[in-house]
Amino acid sequence: MQGVKVLGGVVGAAALLGLGIILGHFAIPKGADSPAPSISASQDLDLGILETVMGQLDASRIRENLRELSREPHLSSTPRDEELVQLLLQRWRDAESGLDSAETFEYEVLLSLPSQEQPNSVTIVDPTGNILFSCRRSEENVTGEQEGPDVVPPYAAYAPPGTPQGLLVYANQGSEEDFEELQNRGIRLEGTIALTRYGGVGRGAKAVNAAKHGVAGVLVYTDPSDINDGQSSPSQTFPYSWGLPPSGVERGSYLEYFGDPLTPYLPANPSSFRLDPANASGFPPIPAQPIGFEDAKVLLCQVNVSVHNRLELRNSSNVLGIIRGAVEPDRYVLYGNHRDSWVHGAVDPSSGTAVLLEVTRALGTLLKKGTWRPRRSVIFGSWGAEEFGLIGSTEFTEEFFSKLQERTVAYINVDISVFANVSLRAQGTPPIQSVVFTAAKQIPAPGRSSLSIYDNWIQYSNRSSPVYGLVPSLGTLGAGSDYAPFIHFLGISSMDLAYTYDRSKTSARIYPTYHTAFDTFGYVDNFVDPGFSSHQAVSRVVGNVLLRLSDSLFLPLNVSDYSETLRSFLQAAQQDLGALLEQHSISLGPLVAAVDKFEGAAAALDERISELQKGTPDPLQVRMLNDQLMLLERSFLNSRAFPEERYYSHVLWAPRTGSVATFPGLANACSAAMNTAPGSAAWAEVQRQLSIVVAAVEAAAATLRPVADL
Amino acid sequence: MQGVKVLGGVVGAAALLGLGIILGHFAIPKGADSPAPSISASQDLDLGILETVMGQLDASRIRENLRELSREPHLSSTPRDEELVQLLLQRWRDAESGLDSAETFEYEVLLSLPSQEQPNSVTIVDPTGNILFSCRRSEENVTGEQEGPDVVPPYAAYAPPGTPQGLLVYANQGSEEDFEELQNRGIRLEGTIALTRYGGVGRGAKAVNAAKHGVAGVLVYTDPSDINDGQSSPSQTFPYSWGLPPSGVERGSYLEYFGDPLTPYLPANPSSFRLDPANASGFPPIPAQPIGFEDAKVLLCQVNVSVHNRLELRNSSNVLGIIRGAVEPDRYVLYGNHRDSWVHGAVDPSSGTAVLLEVTRALGTLLKKGTWRPRRSVIFGSWGAEEFGLIGSTEFTEEFFSKLQERTVAYINVDISVFANVSLRAQGTPPIQSVVFTAAKQIPAPGRSSLSIYDNWIQYSNRSSPVYGLVPSLGTLGAGSDYAPFIHFLGISSMDLAYTYDRSKTSARIYPTYHTAFDTFGYVDNFVDPGFSSHQAVSRVVGNVLLRLSDSLFLPLNVSDYSETLRSFLQAAQQDLGALLEQHSISLGPLVAAVDKFEGAAAALDERISELQKGTPDPLQVRMLNDQLMLLERSFLNSRAFPEERYYSHVLWAPRTGSVATFPGLANACSAAMNTAPGSAAWAEVQRQLSIVVAAVEAAAATLRPVADL
Repeated sequence: MQGVKVLGGVVGAAALLGLGIILGHFAIPKGADSPAPSISASQDLDLGILETVMGQLDASRIRENLRELSREPHLSSTPRDEELVQLLLQRWRDAESGLDSAETFEYEVLLSLPSQEQPNSVTIVDPTGNILFSCRRSEENVTGEQEGPDVVPPYAAYAPPGTPQGLLVYANQGSEEDFEELQNRGIRLEGTIALTRYGGVGRGAKAVNAAKHGVAGVLVYTDPSDINDGQSSPSQTFPYSWGLPPSGVERGSYLEYFGDPLTPYLPANPSSFRLDPANASGFPPIPAQPIGFEDAKVLLCQVNVSVHNRLELRNSSNVLGIIRGAVEPDRYVLYGNHRDSWVHGAVDPSSGTAVLLEVTRALGTLLKKGTWRPRRSVIFGSWGAEEFGLIGSTEFTEEFFSKLQERTVAYINVDISVFANVSLRAQGTPPIQSVVFTAAKQIPAPGRSSLSIYDNWIQYSNRSSPVYGLVPSLGTLGAGSDYAPFIHFLGISSMDLAYTYDRSKTSARIYPTYHTAFDTFGYVDNFVDPGFSSHQAVSRVVGNVLLRLSDSLFLPLNVSDYSETLRSFLQAAQQDLGALLEQHSISLGPLVAAVDKFEGAAAALDERISELQKGTPDPLQVRMLNDQLMLLERSFLNSRAFPEERYYSHVLWAPRTGSVATFPGLANACSAAMNTAPGSAAWAEVQRQLSIVVAAVEAAAATLRPVADL
Repeated sequence: MQGVKVLGGVVGAAALLGLGIILGHFAIPKGADSPAPSISASQDLDLGILETVMGQLDASRIRENLRELSREPHLSSTPRDEELVQLLLQRWRDAESGLDSAETFEYEVLLSLPSQEQPNSVTIVDPTGNILFSCRRSEENVTGEQEGPDVVPPYAAYAPPGTPQGLLVYANQGSEEDFEELQNRGIRLEGTIALTRYGGVGRGAKAVNAAKHGVAGVLVYTDPSDINDGQSSPSQTFPYSWGLPPSGVERGSYLEYFGDPLTPYLPANPSSFRLDPANASGFPPIPAQPIGFEDAKVLLCQVNVSVHNRLELRNSSNVLGIIRGAVEPDRYVLYGNHRDSWVHGAVDPSSGTAVLLEVTRALGTLLKKGTWRPRRSVIFGSWGAEEFGLIGSTEFTEEFFSKLQERTVAYINVDISVFANVSLRAQGTPPIQSVVFTAAKQIPAPGRSSLSIYDNWIQYSNRSSPVYGLVPSLGTLGAGSDYAPFIHFLGISSMDLAYTYDRSKTSARIYPTYHTAFDTFGYVDNFVDPGFSSHQAVSRVVGNVLLRLSDSLFLPLNVSDYSETLRSFLQAAQQDLGALLEQHSISLGPLVAAVDKFEGAAAALDERISELQKGTPDPLQVRMLNDQLMLLERSFLNSRAFPEERYYSHVLWAPRTGSVATFPGLANACSAAMNTAPGSAAWAEVQRQLSIVVAAVEAAAATLRPVADL
């Protein structure tokens, strides 16, 4: 009874709360060079500003950005890459449309490059060593852009040099199963050259799997059925369609880990400790070389592969731009993309950078005019050396680990902004689902202006949610782009946004000219997104999400959407692993209890938020609540859960090899234990992984409970 | 110019800032059961309340607490330990002087206990096996408290069972050097029993070192010269003085790590994964047994040691009490001590618990009257199973890792509150120095009321600070009590407070009856602190520090005091390792630059704080600044720096074995590399450790810089 009285007294006191406190005075640090709008500490997202930004994001400006960005090849650390660094600095320091500040952060990182003097080669030789056939060393010069000193020849970055020669064996996708099947059929693999096609497993994994069976070298080609829906003649492909020409070769990094290979967990500053490359891990064990399908089809016999790749320490820059927050400058919304490409990189990554520049221009213009400043700080990143293994972004997270982990609200990644112009595709962790949905509902779909992006999206990719019914499918985050260190290493709620294909129309593994010399401005302008309306649509989704994250009084992170994920992981474990676990006396009971607790805490927090939103909450009170929302994702981290998986510490999103769609540590440990005896070390690891998950879900629930409860 | 104008406009706006906003309404969660004082979000420490608390902390109440707490032996997990759990709950739930809430958290932990059926024994045997002499199995019943079923016989916890027999070899303190010297003198160690004395190295290390030389068993005795300033006859010792009687035996844990041995990094909940004890690490490799000096002096020949210790899973509870914060309930000040003792434990730990209960009574009374509620939440902890290896506190940090790391302002530990009644002794990390000094200046020294505790302290232990001149010495934190998991594992600014000896009067290694059956209420009442004025003094220091941490608007953590530490570590590295490092082409330049940056950032932050304190800072603004102060300590953590040192991740305070008073990772790596060839793995480790330190100091500087700068 006394409790109730107290509460009454307290609610009375609330009436005295002064509103509309002008806080602008403290939040703008000295040296800010743009006029400061008057901003109250309790001010919420301004829908007028949002509308203005949506209206200003301009397809033709994105097109011009892309033309400039993709004009020349800009492989990481080359002079053209440095010119683009200067372009970004100039844009972000522009007096009329720039940010508060922008600077570069340079790292010294280990890249792998083909030798100019000794080109890599793939040849067919007869028993006496005469060359019967040589594969192309560069792509056909179809548009005049495929030749020239800055077009890096096709190669497998980080594949070791070597000149293996041997019989050719076709090994499908180069998976473990593929090599096992060959062995089971009695095919001798020792000393052979394996011809594999892209897809199925990662690039580096093909060489790792091959080496286990004594294979001496690996070739990787792009199969027309995987990339061109079967079309393979020159007249059916670029420049006559979006298809990959027969000479096209997908370049790529064959490194198994991400980040600079010589400085794991340390920023790659010039003075940082570096591993001896001989002791560094993650390089493919045997020479590898990618080729085009034109050449793949003539390889039938004894093959010589000459790889002359060299490791080189090179300087690679990140460019960082900042808009300081007016009210909570110590809360960061991050938005980034990489800058480096394999060749011209019009789609990958310039379509994303073109969007990034347009979003910063629109926001910078409002900032410089003095009509807007975000509640929280916004940090824009142009990452270097992504193509070699997410190196720039990873070094950034290593250098600023503590403060990023303590202060970052969310990370938005837009790498390839438009794969194709049919539908939005979003990947992310559950807390960002709702803000992406909200933004997508507010923006018309390109080419179908009667529909919203959301309504269009749900037609192409959807799922049935037990909570919401039919909704667009949010994909999960692997390690395909720069979001990886943010989600896996720092535990920051992250998303990756793009426009994509109609999967009923194409089975292409990815857009056909991916990582080839045909990924050019003309390719985008003619085939990927003529008119750039999909680019514009993505820029609007990003701008909308960004403004909601930076300006909303209550952070638009819906943490209770994690309940659905946890419940589904739990159900999969119960259905598909429960009986097996029971046989080994391992109970899922504690996990059931933890998930129940999480659901309860998340639902109660939702209620508290609704209650607060009805009144006039104090900014400090909202801040405490927002900290719970921001830090939830961090509670799923355990840096000791997967010691062999570099950087991976998120117990829900680490790589899963086991087939059951449940907690990855549990799924993988069960796969490994499956055929071992009761009481084996593998079964102990299952128990350990289960305890790690229980502890993480309990910690997550504890983060959401009222802050003065334990 | 525009920047200045902006600033002018903004300062004008500050005048509009509403003051004295009543925030009590939101900060008191539903269910709070005491009247809420009106608390403004900008309210600072109330000096009147501080004075009131200082006046209410009562020596005679502490004495009565101690009498009750130490009335019976209360070894971890015994029925009397459970009774004390209930006593704490009752006190902390008291309607008139209790806290907002209190509850127990029980863990299932692996303890090591002597067998009741087969007592451990140490005997001298002749060549035919006849027993010539047996060591005592319990201490002499001097005060009537040394016998009885609840007095655990002397034993070495976690020493494995075994009955080794062999020639006795005296091995001094059982250090590596001690055994090497014996070996160099041609003394055969294989199969012997080593007699060692306490001190020099840790308990478990004696057995580890001995086993490396083939020793079969270890005895450990307390030497009168180490503990009694040489006094050794019954009439010179307790109950006639504070000296240890000849039959006294120091019990103790011989575990090398802390935390439950079977659940490293996981809370020891019943369902948690447990290592097979056969695979757990940290247990002594050979049987060990402690004995008294009365017995030690007669052991001269063939000795039989029978150890029958058993490992047992036992339930051990932490008791946690909470006072919810009025304004920032999500910021925690932690104050704790362990509850379990080896026998009656009047000094260790009940002198600390008696103080804890008096501090909570005084604060609880104000709370229940409605005259006070702290700005931040205060969490009080009574930890279980500390004597076996800081188990209760470690499990607590494992269970609540995320939220404690995100929200905890500081941890205060008071284990033994009074070793002797001469001077304050404080250990801690640099940010807590100033608040301890401030408190110590405000409280009269017991027995010397014309002097403050500070003025008395500086007479007994001082150092010359380059910043402040002569100041009392703040000790560093090892792993001797429950602060260890908070500072080393969580990176929370921590301190340990006690009253202690006049080192010019005694060379006792520790108070003489430590971990013996003579550590009783009468011992404290007659010899340690007659009148309990030193207990009262400690309670006042703790109460004062706690109120300053919980109630001050600006957190009283002086982060710039870390500059002095970093500078001195750097200078030691330059002076004592510089030449050696240079020989191996390792430059300290990046470390110099990082320390300079830290100093600059800390000094600039100090200025910002001073500026702000002149005005009427907004609570949200203060909160952001306080977060920088709170999180500084966290930026020194690197969970991958010392993978072999369980829980240790603070790069400044991890254990240092190298002799140079510098960064421990660097010092240790240099010791290990010293005699290896250039380019060895050991020299690579030196470079790695240096990079780790540079990255940590850079991250610390980044945390202190203005929040919207990178």
